[in-house]
Amino acid sequence: MIRQAKAVRKVAGKGVHAARRGRAVRKLRAAKVDAMLVTKPVDVGYLTGFTGQDSSLLVGSGWACLVTDGRFTEQVAKDCPDIECCVRTGPMEAALAGVLKGRRVRKLGFDPKHVTVKLRNDLAGKLGGRKLVEVSEVVSSLRQAKDDGELRIMRRAIRIAEKAFKELCGLGPKGWVGRTERDLAAELGYRMRQAGADGLSFPTILAAGAHGSMPHYSPGSARVKAGQAVLIDWGARAGGYCSDLTRVVFTGTIPAKLREIYEVVRLAQEAGIAAIRPGVGCKAVDKAAREVIVKAGYGGQFGHGLGHGLGREVHEAPGLGKLSTVRLKSGMVVTVEPGIYLPGIGGVRIEDDVLVTAGSARRLSGLPRDIDAMRL
Amino acid sequence: MIRQAKAVRKVAGKGVHAARRGRAVRKLRAAKVDAMLVTKPVDVGYLTGFTGQDSSLLVGSGWACLVTDGRFTEQVAKDCPDIECCVRTGPMEAALAGVLKGRRVRKLGFDPKHVTVKLRNDLAGKLGGRKLVEVSEVVSSLRQAKDDGELRIMRRAIRIAEKAFKELCGLGPKGWVGRTERDLAAELGYRMRQAGADGLSFPTILAAGAHGSMPHYSPGSARVKAGQAVLIDWGARAGGYCSDLTRVVFTGTIPAKLREIYEVVRLAQEAGIAAIRPGVGCKAVDKAAREVIVKAGYGGQFGHGLGHGLGREVHEAPGLGKLSTVRLKSGMVVTVEPGIYLPGIGGVRIEDDVLVTAGSARRLSGLPRDIDAMRL
Repeated sequence: MIRQAKAVRKVAGKGVHAARRGRAVRKLRAAKVDAMLVTKPVDVGYLTGFTGQDSSLLVGSGWACLVTDGRFTEQVAKDCPDIECCVRTGPMEAALAGVLKGRRVRKLGFDPKHVTVKLRNDLAGKLGGRKLVEVSEVVSSLRQAKDDGELRIMRRAIRIAEKAFKELCGLGPKGWVGRTERDLAAELGYRMRQAGADGLSFPTILAAGAHGSMPHYSPGSARVKAGQAVLIDWGARAGGYCSDLTRVVFTGTIPAKLREIYEVVRLAQEAGIAAIRPGVGCKAVDKAAREVIVKAGYGGQFGHGLGHGLGREVHEAPGLGKLSTVRLKSGMVVTVEPGIYLPGIGGVRIEDDVLVTAGSARRLSGLPRDIDAMRL
Repeated sequence: MIRQAKAVRKVAGKGVHAARRGRAVRKLRAAKVDAMLVTKPVDVGYLTGFTGQDSSLLVGSGWACLVTDGRFTEQVAKDCPDIECCVRTGPMEAALAGVLKGRRVRKLGFDPKHVTVKLRNDLAGKLGGRKLVEVSEVVSSLRQAKDDGELRIMRRAIRIAEKAFKELCGLGPKGWVGRTERDLAAELGYRMRQAGADGLSFPTILAAGAHGSMPHYSPGSARVKAGQAVLIDWGARAGGYCSDLTRVVFTGTIPAKLREIYEVVRLAQEAGIAAIRPGVGCKAVDKAAREVIVKAGYGGQFGHGLGHGLGREVHEAPGLGKLSTVRLKSGMVVTVEPGIYLPGIGGVRIEDDVLVTAGSARRLSGLPRDIDAMRL
């Protein structure tokens, strides 16, 4: 499956990926490097459209070359016909050095967070007089604000997750009570795939009753009972983008304590979303929601940040938390997911995906949040 | 969720994980380092039993400490009560340096394949007079030969994959014809989860008709037809271990060309498995199977290695390929998966999971391979 290394195509870059590479190159100039090695798959995909695996991108002013192996020759041609491609036959570092040969690259940037010591060493041994320079967060910072094409795909990933959830809720309490958490989570995943998901954004959390107090719970063999709360945190991956939602549903009568904290969490989410607009610090958004929970006396039971950026990765920059120093920008998509967790009793978290727009915030997810609508 | 960094427990290590750490430490002595940083999650899990995320292990002679964050405090206590644990409140490198404080570690080993440049830099800045030394493949080499406990779990992962496959085949041609590849793949995944899988070993390949000629095909919207071959490559993940199987099923009359290549592939697999025993080079096993295909005139249509090690990772050492220099050892589990791919027509691959035993080879997977048994 391994072919002779050669540039198989060279076409002038146009369109959305070329524009993204242009923005990346402007950042490289500011960082005083001539080109950059991109190794993180979601970053490579963002700059090229490539959907295969195990490939690296070199990008400089006016040029880009994807280094892949013979398994993905067809994939490159299909996904990114507008850039050069090198099909490597030997180690990655040798192929990268080959691509650089004859190009005016004295300083090559790389992200130390995404390059292993081995690759750095191997590459350093092949670069002759060129210098390797650490350059951080070039692509991830570009990825924060989504463009219209990305938002279209993200809306689709959200719709898929919502459709599957509605179908599962449509089974009613009879379709839930007596089944294991694991089985219900598996069915939700199956329904997302049937609705067009390429996969899950992350392993579904589905926690019955008291299990809901563990924010990172893994669904197990516990069976859902009547009159119980079930916390579900799930998402679909489609077209390379993630959705991420949380709801709590009830299989019968709603326990009074859960009704109380549900209402606090719902109001906290409203307050968080109301605080979202371009220019506002992520920290302030977290604070706006957190204050509602603190005032209700549950500050100690909300032990995580309010939310996080969402896109190609299910957790990406910016984080909405106490320590964040980032300010919101138009086009960012963030989750807003306050929660209250009561060990031995259960937990409530409500999570929606929210777009920062010039005006304010727009919820991209449209599932009901009213507690009485959450009864199966 | 972040707590004060402290050692929460210190218990003398006993049992299987302590024994594995003991073997790792003997390798460290040979490499002349006093302790090692382990960052790859499957390696950390192998040495400790830990099933959480984002955690690193420091292991030295007679001691081990898992550095995790507040999300996994409960998980550590449950999974690995026999080692120290440090719940970090700040960056990983600071916590690691804290754990090393007061210990006689002059040289700290790390695997350059699994440590990023950033972590290495951050750590180097915190270690004072200690030296960071590159040490390769310490844990992955230990992981190659499986012990009885691991084999029990792997057999379960295989049984789960087989059960789901049999159920799907049990639907008969009426349950397959007219459905999309994507939908059938999703149902197979759902059935594996219902049978007890924690997840998939990898995204299922399910390729109808001519799509079978692409070894890395992703199931799409093509609908299965009557009288077609469908190639399925799938696996279940259970208890931290993977299974990996491939079969070709037929929705009706078997096309003559596919019958011909099926028989060649089946005999090639027999020949490969017959060549397996401790001491034999992986290269020789590949050759034994490949010769059958070459003699039948299809050498050019078998463009990948014969198989790979299987365990915590779906692809791990040793590879069964032309370039492998490894010799088989008792306890290794490898896939044996010859194939013939005819563009425009389709492909046949038959894959089983095989244990190298003192005597010879034992198939761990028990699905039929006879072509007439593969008709739905």
